[in-house]
Amino acid sequence: MRFFSDNAASVHPALFEALAACNHVDTAYDGDALSKRLDGVFSDLFGTDCVALWVSTGTAANCLALATMVPPHGGVFCHADAHINSDEAGAPEFFTHGAKLLPLAGEGAKLTPETVRAARKAIRADVHRVQPHALSITNATEYGLVYTPDEVAALGEVAREHQLGLHMDGARFANAIATLGCHPGDATWRAGVDVLSFGFVKNGGMSAEALVYFRTDLAEVAKIRRKRAGHLNSKGRYQAAQILALLEEDRWLANARAANAGAATLAAAAGARLRYPVQANELFARMTAPEAAALRSQGFDFYDWDEDEVRLVTSWDQPAAEIEALAMAIRALGTSRASK
Amino acid sequence: MRFFSDNAASVHPALFEALAACNHVDTAYDGDALSKRLDGVFSDLFGTDCVALWVSTGTAANCLALATMVPPHGGVFCHADAHINSDEAGAPEFFTHGAKLLPLAGEGAKLTPETVRAARKAIRADVHRVQPHALSITNATEYGLVYTPDEVAALGEVAREHQLGLHMDGARFANAIATLGCHPGDATWRAGVDVLSFGFVKNGGMSAEALVYFRTDLAEVAKIRRKRAGHLNSKGRYQAAQILALLEEDRWLANARAANAGAATLAAAAGARLRYPVQANELFARMTAPEAAALRSQGFDFYDWDEDEVRLVTSWDQPAAEIEALAMAIRALGTSRASK
Amino acid sequence: MRFFSDNAASVHPALFEALAACNHVDTAYDGDALSKRLDGVFSDLFGTDCVALWVSTGTAANCLALATMVPPHGGVFCHADAHINSDEAGAPEFFTHGAKLLPLAGEGAKLTPETVRAARKAIRADVHRVQPHALSITNATEYGLVYTPDEVAALGEVAREHQLGLHMDGARFANAIATLGCHPGDATWRAGVDVLSFGFVKNGGMSAEALVYFRTDLAEVAKIRRKRAGHLNSKGRYQAAQILALLEEDRWLANARAANAGAATLAAAAGARLRYPVQANELFARMTAPEAAALRSQGFDFYDWDEDEVRLVTSWDQPAAEIEALAMAIRALGTSRASK
Amino acid sequence: MRFFSDNAASVHPALFEALAACNHVDTAYDGDALSKRLDGVFSDLFGTDCVALWVSTGTAANCLALATMVPPHGGVFCHADAHINSDEAGAPEFFTHGAKLLPLAGEGAKLTPETVRAARKAIRADVHRVQPHALSITNATEYGLVYTPDEVAALGEVAREHQLGLHMDGARFANAIATLGCHPGDATWRAGVDVLSFGFVKNGGMSAEALVYFRTDLAEVAKIRRKRAGHLNSKGRYQAAQILALLEEDRWLANARAANAGAATLAAAAGARLRYPVQANELFARMTAPEAAALRSQGFDFYDWDEDEVRLVTSWDQPAAEIEALAMAIRALGTSRASK
Repeated sequence: MRFFSDNAASVHPALFEALAACNHVDTAYDGDALSKRLDGVFSDLFGTDCVALWVSTGTAANCLALATMVPPHGGVFCHADAHINSDEAGAPEFFTHGAKLLPLAGEGAKLTPETVRAARKAIRADVHRVQPHALSITNATEYGLVYTPDEVAALGEVAREHQLGLHMDGARFANAIATLGCHPGDATWRAGVDVLSFGFVKNGGMSAEALVYFRTDLAEVAKIRRKRAGHLNSKGRYQAAQILALLEEDRWLANARAANAGAATLAAAAGARLRYPVQANELFARMTAPEAAALRSQGFDFYDWDEDEVRLVTSWDQPAAEIEALAMAIRALGTSRASK
Repeated sequence: MRFFSDNAASVHPALFEALAACNHVDTAYDGDALSKRLDGVFSDLFGTDCVALWVSTGTAANCLALATMVPPHGGVFCHADAHINSDEAGAPEFFTHGAKLLPLAGEGAKLTPETVRAARKAIRADVHRVQPHALSITNATEYGLVYTPDEVAALGEVAREHQLGLHMDGARFANAIATLGCHPGDATWRAGVDVLSFGFVKNGGMSAEALVYFRTDLAEVAKIRRKRAGHLNSKGRYQAAQILALLEEDRWLANARAANAGAATLAAAAGARLRYPVQANELFARMTAPEAAALRSQGFDFYDWDEDEVRLVTSWDQPAAEIEALAMAIRALGTSRASK
Repeated sequence: MRFFSDNAASVHPALFEALAACNHVDTAYDGDALSKRLDGVFSDLFGTDCVALWVSTGTAANCLALATMVPPHGGVFCHADAHINSDEAGAPEFFTHGAKLLPLAGEGAKLTPETVRAARKAIRADVHRVQPHALSITNATEYGLVYTPDEVAALGEVAREHQLGLHMDGARFANAIATLGCHPGDATWRAGVDVLSFGFVKNGGMSAEALVYFRTDLAEVAKIRRKRAGHLNSKGRYQAAQILALLEEDRWLANARAANAGAATLAAAAGARLRYPVQANELFARMTAPEAAALRSQGFDFYDWDEDEVRLVTSWDQPAAEIEALAMAIRALGTSRASK
Repeated sequence: MRFFSDNAASVHPALFEALAACNHVDTAYDGDALSKRLDGVFSDLFGTDCVALWVSTGTAANCLALATMVPPHGGVFCHADAHINSDEAGAPEFFTHGAKLLPLAGEGAKLTPETVRAARKAIRADVHRVQPHALSITNATEYGLVYTPDEVAALGEVAREHQLGLHMDGARFANAIATLGCHPGDATWRAGVDVLSFGFVKNGGMSAEALVYFRTDLAEVAKIRRKRAGHLNSKGRYQAAQILALLEEDRWLANARAANAGAATLAAAAGARLRYPVQANELFARMTAPEAAALRSQGFDFYDWDEDEVRLVTSWDQPAAEIEALAMAIRALGTSRASK
């Protein structure tokens, strides 16, 4: 029973049908009928003009986004625990040609306007210091917290004040929207987001993420940089098909709701063990090594995150029985004895 | 009837079955059972120890290969018409951090040992000149010519003499091997090739190519760079599955033979129009604009390549009837009146 | 008697006086009184608003210029024998983060509008091909030819047509102006030049070149990139002092005239041996190996350039006796027997 | 009376004599007689085989050093307040092609073995995390503290354990050695330092620093990268002359002792105001805004460093009267009323 990551989940069956349905000749790269539909479909979804590109990984999406907003000599404000700062092997530095990530603090990998303003103020405006050109936030965050539209808008205002591009890493954007219940435009462009990495792979996809530009003027360069990074698949229609299949019938939302519901059930069981409120599909729970071992001996697979802390992630395809079993097993551990 | 590129062909049905067969949870990235099989499968195929990585495009494969052999201050000998030099949007420069492609001449995009030796000799060995660190050849070449094992070995010897890594861009490696009828090891590591970009996408694949290291010591850095370039898919098993499906039952060879056979039929029809011998699945034929228009009016789709010259590419899935129809239509044009 | 390069000449005495004169405390970097004078002094000299930065080498000047006009995914048209393409160790690729130099042909390292237009036309405007963003010319060229203001203006028009930034590598700009006898503005901004690398080191300087922006909007980024490249000396006043000393009393022109006059004397002696007209301070002369050896045995030091060809460079400080001696020695060789 | 930086000090007279003495023709770049003496002179000074390169700035020295030890996908441990991390405009990221600086904490910009070991341990060894390849320390630190040979050796041991290259930013190396009174080799290669940026500019120089390789195998690439970064001056002899002049008669040590003595006098006056012990030529002193204003009104020029804190830097050429005057003025302020 796998709770180590939504990364490893299966692919939604509708996606296979969509791949089969496009198994005929069409123009190469992104000139095919399906790839050409993306701009329109995302524009409809967000209620504003968008340019949307498929790319094969979230890292590629994030880093292309940054590369179109930040010059090589610029900087990017982000949380110290942001995926771009800690889990992308220096890909942001690669795609931006050495721009500097400027890591900030904040509970649960969440940034506040105060933090960003103070950090900006502390950077003397001269040629000796790297000047920030963008702000990147993750929604839902790496610790499973969700920014509300108002919270995003407050950061969007800071971004505007200081001429920072605003990027949202939405590897779990679907989970955030499922929790918020808001229009996707409210948590993004209406709140000042310029570019969104819209994740599908963790949410029933296979190998396609969407890079959505609300600032459509930046998208032309993104297309060039995508090719230059080896991310322009020649048979792009199979990439587009995956995204379209998950958008149809709001499967992306249904999948995210399923994952979130599983996490909520576990959260109720974990109670006081939780390090953060559970707002998406990730739990971070205090747990001693013997407790973790006890769960593992029952067949539950998950990561230790820190000393006396574990991470549990639920997926769109997680069987209800697994969730129930884990919830029961956590309850059976009794009150946390972890020191933290 | 599409003859513009094998890039746009359909995907082999066996690949869909393979994708469906791995639609269950497994470890993320390349820790899954299928990804772990690649080293062994390619080692068996080539008859030597290999490390094999999946990547999503040929550009990524080529450029990761170069990045592991060439420092940022180094150079790469290649043909001026090599895909890396003319069709990858500067991706080699991106992945290598600014290494310089050193373009050489040669009929049909083919290099000779004399050309490479002369070019090397012309570069003064000091800090003012970019020093070459690798040689990249394409087999089959961008003009559909095939290097024999002996020809590769002669270049391999030049590479060894001058301490150049030897990369083979095998976007159409299958077509070359189908023509040569040799053991894949004879045209690669036995002839001095250090790294091979083994193409599958043009040959019935969807979104997976293989990067095969015969110099296995270089592969560790390749894995790091793959991640850093956003090319480490989290659901890697669906990438590995594609490659394994095309290797099984020698489908890669059968597909290549089918494409080559189509080209041979067209070549017989084109006769004296051919600019180069047809040794794989591409034809470059002299043709006036009215002649080309005549073919297009009959439903044949293809690219003009140069003035009074067209390119025709056959694919693994090309219906025999299309081939026959085009061969007949070319014959009906009569003797070439093109000036070239 | 040194004719191998103007690179190795001595430093003008006025420059030492200027260094001594600023040997007191002043603000660091480029905030000192002398550095602040540069914009005005160059604006006066060129008759238009300029921003001028000191840098320590011509390579740095050229590459900063390119880096402010060309994105990492862009290209630069230049002559194949341009210094940036053949003698800067890949520095342009380093400073631009992998932009591609697109080498063109032309007699004596000189480009024509026709060549540039044809090259631009041959580059399909799509994401697969590197698109040119700048044109770089050298005046005087690497073979000692001089572009007239009209010739520059014709290239400036091509640049404008295709939205290419126009850079002039003026390592020997002084020699060109000395020959042309025109206003420096006529050969630069009035003819469409956006940025000029104005060389002083070969012309009596020590370690300071000027990077002159006629497109002043680009200069802010140049200042950032200069620092980021480690080229912002903390004691910048000693850099500025060098440039100011050579501009004062038109020493830069007097020095260039002296070097050019020496070359003219040698050119008269070399006669039919000359490969190109001598328009600045460099000669390329046909000469057999025994002939070259004969000169060397008389104490003349110079480079072989090609088979049966030598390069002779005169400097600002070359004693008249050395020039006379070499002219006489060349005459004594008689009519060229070199095959070329 | 300037106490804002040793950056702005004058140049030692001996250096001007040395420049004049080499004002004749010699081979260009670093082929001249003076440049060729550097390896030997530094080898003698340090008591081991060295390769020494002149470069024009400390930033260039630091970043070339890092670029030869750290691949683009690697990381560099350094203090968060290290000059490379906070005052070089992203130059380390530029020269290394995007390597990641991994900032660590420590009092007075000083690192301890424990801090480095803990940081190394926290980085999971997989392809998702940037792996450190070097450790960079500054001696004297950015807050004027000095690492003893033993302290360096303890860090050298950590570096060896984890296969990290060890770089020392010695912008104020002379000040450190003047304080330590030890053999320069004891604080460097004998303690595990692989490369040293040996600063001369702040210590009576004009535009030349030395990059000293104790790991001489790395120096060949450094020479290539120096050229590629536009840092290979064509008239290199004037760079070498500066360094040689300051090494002769131990001027570098005499100058550093003078600066340190000035700082010691001020330190005695500042007493309890001092944030750190004064071990080189920098003081960081608690001071309210009115107090700072009072000093400035008496003609003392210096930087505010933080709220209620100022930085005072003494230089090699500081008149004794200025030091005395400032010491007296500080004493006259009485006991610090600053909150910190």
